[in-house]
Amino acid sequence: MDRNLRAHADAVVAASIRAVQPDAAVKRALTGQEFSGRVVLVAAGKAAWQMAKAAYDCLGSRIDSGVVITKYGHVMGPIANFACREAGHPVPDENSFSATREALEMVSGLGQGDTVLFLLSGGGSALFEKPLVSGEELQDITGQLLACGADIVEINTIRKRLSGVKGGRFALACAPARVFSVVLSDILGDPLDMIASGPAYPDSSTSQQALAIAGKYGLRLSCGARALLSQETPKELNNITTQITGSVRQLCAAAAAACRELGYKPMILTDQLCCQAKEAGSFLASILKTHARDGEKLAFLAGGETVVQLTGKGKGGRNQELALSAAEGIWGLKGAAVFSVGSDGTDGPTDAAGGYADYETAGELKAQGVEIYRVLQENDAYHALQKTGGLIMTGPTGTNVNDVAVALLDAKR
Amino acid sequence: MDRNLRAHADAVVAASIRAVQPDAAVKRALTGQEFSGRVVLVAAGKAAWQMAKAAYDCLGSRIDSGVVITKYGHVMGPIANFACREAGHPVPDENSFSATREALEMVSGLGQGDTVLFLLSGGGSALFEKPLVSGEELQDITGQLLACGADIVEINTIRKRLSGVKGGRFALACAPARVFSVVLSDILGDPLDMIASGPAYPDSSTSQQALAIAGKYGLRLSCGARALLSQETPKELNNITTQITGSVRQLCAAAAAACRELGYKPMILTDQLCCQAKEAGSFLASILKTHARDGEKLAFLAGGETVVQLTGKGKGGRNQELALSAAEGIWGLKGAAVFSVGSDGTDGPTDAAGGYADYETAGELKAQGVEIYRVLQENDAYHALQKTGGLIMTGPTGTNVNDVAVALLDAKR
Repeated sequence: MDRNLRAHADAVVAASIRAVQPDAAVKRALTGQEFSGRVVLVAAGKAAWQMAKAAYDCLGSRIDSGVVITKYGHVMGPIANFACREAGHPVPDENSFSATREALEMVSGLGQGDTVLFLLSGGGSALFEKPLVSGEELQDITGQLLACGADIVEINTIRKRLSGVKGGRFALACAPARVFSVVLSDILGDPLDMIASGPAYPDSSTSQQALAIAGKYGLRLSCGARALLSQETPKELNNITTQITGSVRQLCAAAAAACRELGYKPMILTDQLCCQAKEAGSFLASILKTHARDGEKLAFLAGGETVVQLTGKGKGGRNQELALSAAEGIWGLKGAAVFSVGSDGTDGPTDAAGGYADYETAGELKAQGVEIYRVLQENDAYHALQKTGGLIMTGPTGTNVNDVAVALLDAKR
Repeated sequence: MDRNLRAHADAVVAASIRAVQPDAAVKRALTGQEFSGRVVLVAAGKAAWQMAKAAYDCLGSRIDSGVVITKYGHVMGPIANFACREAGHPVPDENSFSATREALEMVSGLGQGDTVLFLLSGGGSALFEKPLVSGEELQDITGQLLACGADIVEINTIRKRLSGVKGGRFALACAPARVFSVVLSDILGDPLDMIASGPAYPDSSTSQQALAIAGKYGLRLSCGARALLSQETPKELNNITTQITGSVRQLCAAAAAACRELGYKPMILTDQLCCQAKEAGSFLASILKTHARDGEKLAFLAGGETVVQLTGKGKGGRNQELALSAAEGIWGLKGAAVFSVGSDGTDGPTDAAGGYADYETAGELKAQGVEIYRVLQENDAYHALQKTGGLIMTGPTGTNVNDVAVALLDAKR
């Protein structure tokens, strides 16, 4: 491992994640906002606690009451008189349902001059839920969708129709009160009706699409569930205001700024990457190989969320696979490094946030008898990167705005 | 289909292929060269006829005799007194072997002042061959390697050792005569010992690597073949001169120039692309989606040779898959198009050179009941693109320097 390049990678990772912290984002969104009447806070998602804390720091006792619904282990302490609840993710559980009921009770009876301050982040789909089918069936359908490889857009199109809060229905429940939403986006392109399944945004998906998805994957559904898929969601809402405050665009912009700071000329290729992780790594390596001729310090950035094709039973995540796959292509290419990191600090079912590889990584692995193509077949990037010091560990970051991959080239080194 | 964008694509394809025509390339390489003594021409590869024709146009009767070995259907007429032979590709056949014997006889007995003008292009590996195992076993081993997904570098490492002409052994056979090679490169990064398995270049691959590849894919080999894998190839040759005259770099540069001509700001991302075709298409689409915000006329280029993962039994090729896969991502993105073309005019086992898709393609397919993800699963891009006018037909081009993919964005349209 090249220690200088690794230090650059760590600096870029730290700067990018800092820039998309929910507290900073929420403070930006709330600065200068005036709320009349009663203010009820409802925060849902993996970053709910941080967002609620930041809102309380801004507005203090201006907030009358609040419910915070986040993932198990994510409540960091009490906030004022708010009810802080932990619940199941990615599969919703009884605690998701009871906490959501609590939120619905709290917003019921609000008047026209009142405000629901709705703080939404990734994971909200599972955590904020009032199922219109039984909890068991909802869990079963979600499980079926995850198992058959449906993407998040498809999953949400289905779940909206089985829910009393998703697809704009929460905003309906708040009416006549106004809903002021602050959203950390975890879906590429920031489609507001898809983030956490859009509880407070008009729904653009249709019943027809929902039925098509059910057909495509051959979902097993009760008659009740099938009937719900046919019911339309609100297409218009007049009591909502929405601010997107953190997203992969900011993550990429911050990473690019950090690269520039270190002397690299950055180029953001995309912030909507969604191809296979290891193929993205190969593509980025190809880019570095060609631009090595330029003799410049360059950084190519790709934000988004890649997918992993499961062919083995190893340990790893999409960011680790991307970096390890690139290692083969940049082997021996002096001054080249590729790293990728999940902004939430968790890459797949591992304790690493992502992976780092440079022009020495493949050689170091080979010397230890590790064949990269076999490791990728086994989806075991974690253990390979562990051997080369290529794991990126950040711990939970309290934010979740997809991933950023960076290909660095310091051809002068 | 957007007819204006399609016209731009066709113009870029035509200009790029024109720039890497073998005749122009050979003439460039031979200009100013003086040959003493006897001159024997040996041309092998898919562009052998065009290269030999161009050499004859340059040198005329200065060439004493010649053998041209190309693919079936690729001899376009007689050239002087040269023996023009057609043979099997990608699997060598008896005609490959007999034509190669003819070439070996023609260069035997040459003296120190004499020259073998050796014109090499893609496909030479199969067409120029003197097997040291039986023809049947060679075909069987080649077939095994193709079937198990070995890459061209791996295939050539094996074939060199089973051959009396590859891996520098042809140059040995020509000694003491000098070998002047003119090479159209079809391998990314132009590794001269790999192009057509390097008949006139010192071999950098080792017996150890060959045995490792045989192990990796579990090749079925006779004892004789296994013994040959252990024999080393020449690592030094002092009678050779080599000129690379056409390669994917020139293809990309020409495509970029054509894009600029049409008002696009071009960027060559890489000329060494080697990832999966459909993932490259997805990556390019992601790039366009992000840069749509820039409001400029942009072109992103990626040259190289992608690979297809066979999961179905349809008809298609890597360029067609790349374009079709991008179609999904750029659906509705006004002014966006992605196309990809093989410089040899043949994409996979089809009569198309590549594929074209734009922001309307996915919608047109959907309207016809065609689901892109299913088509890609079936590897059936040809029939889908046929429905949208998205096939690019050039006919055989007489050159072979990999592929180029272009992502166009005319955000102002």
